[in-house]
Amino acid sequence: MYEIYETKERVMADNEAEAEKLRAFLRSNRTFFINLMGSPGSGKTSVLIHTINRLKEKYRIAVMEADVDSSVDAETISKLGVKVIQLHSGGLCHMDADMTARGIERLGIEDIDLLIMENIGNLVCPAEFDVGAALKVMILSVPEGDDKPLKYPLMFTVSNVMLINKIDALPVFDFDQNKALERARKLNPEIIAFPMSTITGEGVSEWVEWLDKQIEDWRKRL
Amino acid sequence: MYEIYETKERVMADNEAEAEKLRAFLRSNRTFFINLMGSPGSGKTSVLIHTINRLKEKYRIAVMEADVDSSVDAETISKLGVKVIQLHSGGLCHMDADMTARGIERLGIEDIDLLIMENIGNLVCPAEFDVGAALKVMILSVPEGDDKPLKYPLMFTVSNVMLINKIDALPVFDFDQNKALERARKLNPEIIAFPMSTITGEGVSEWVEWLDKQIEDWRKRL
Repeated sequence: MYEIYETKERVMADNEAEAEKLRAFLRSNRTFFINLMGSPGSGKTSVLIHTINRLKEKYRIAVMEADVDSSVDAETISKLGVKVIQLHSGGLCHMDADMTARGIERLGIEDIDLLIMENIGNLVCPAEFDVGAALKVMILSVPEGDDKPLKYPLMFTVSNVMLINKIDALPVFDFDQNKALERARKLNPEIIAFPMSTITGEGVSEWVEWLDKQIEDWRKRL
Repeated sequence: MYEIYETKERVMADNEAEAEKLRAFLRSNRTFFINLMGSPGSGKTSVLIHTINRLKEKYRIAVMEADVDSSVDAETISKLGVKVIQLHSGGLCHMDADMTARGIERLGIEDIDLLIMENIGNLVCPAEFDVGAALKVMILSVPEGDDKPLKYPLMFTVSNVMLINKIDALPVFDFDQNKALERARKLNPEIIAFPMSTITGEGVSEWVEWLDKQIEDWRKRL
């Protein structure tokens, strides 16, 4: 079961200030918030499913599915037994901090340890809007090509983690993992990369274990 | 050789009116204009290369490469011996009619029969902005999944043509062509689909021959 919430954009003076306010609230609530981004079809929902399944015994998880339209993903995620809300952006290509804050209020996260937003499939707009997350994770899938950091630099610049997804398809595509990583690191030397496949399961443990450690460390620092 | 032009957005009262003005100008100049859209990594540049190579003996072709940043695609296309300009959107996720008009003015198209704009890789914003094209072509690539019409309905609603690209990868992905087409046709019963692979070349002739016929018919009607 999940609700659909139409989050129309309001004109906000300062998205950064809103995002900081939200981040402070999430810290006080001890809720670790992940902003998950990537192109349409890069595998955001599949990565989410794997991540939830591995962590749902340890953390109380909630998900915000942001979409221009449709509720396909919320329907899928709600079957995992975690709290889900579907946010509709009203045609917009991104979520901003205000829309996120209203989504969070609507969802209710008092008892939530880990909150994940699956952002709208897009490499441009979501990179521009801080939504108050503790961790920004972007997915680059093999079929998209290793030149994406050159074409969508901001996404790679602002993300903490780059998941190189669909590595099972490497034999069929001309994708050089080293080149992709090199290009991303030129923009953002701190970016952490995890190659993975949600089909074969390869690399999923490395990502989930790392994430688990991040959440633990973050909670210790609070 | 190509130029890089920074097309910053100007506040325009009415994008539709601008687009109609541009469309009228292109008709008077007998220039058939295609707006090519699709996700990052869906294969826009590869489709463009195949299309240009098959039609460049018959038509005088020019290309506008729109990107948030970088000039990778303009560099590739300029090697084909057609006129190219690189347009930078200044961070925006789409081109509008005014930006397009200024790009066209800068490029110079007096002697051009076929003008193609490779829009910014994105399934949301480019769908919202009429840029004055005679034909809107969108690419859905197999690795993106057959559910994309559900999630990005406007793109499928406004496009005249859907190229189902990377069909060589069908064995590796769970992609149902009939489902994709059915979902797109539910939004837009008029949409014309061409399955293709720019790797194996399968389906490319069908698309190019159809396009050639459209251009001929359009010119006859002028």
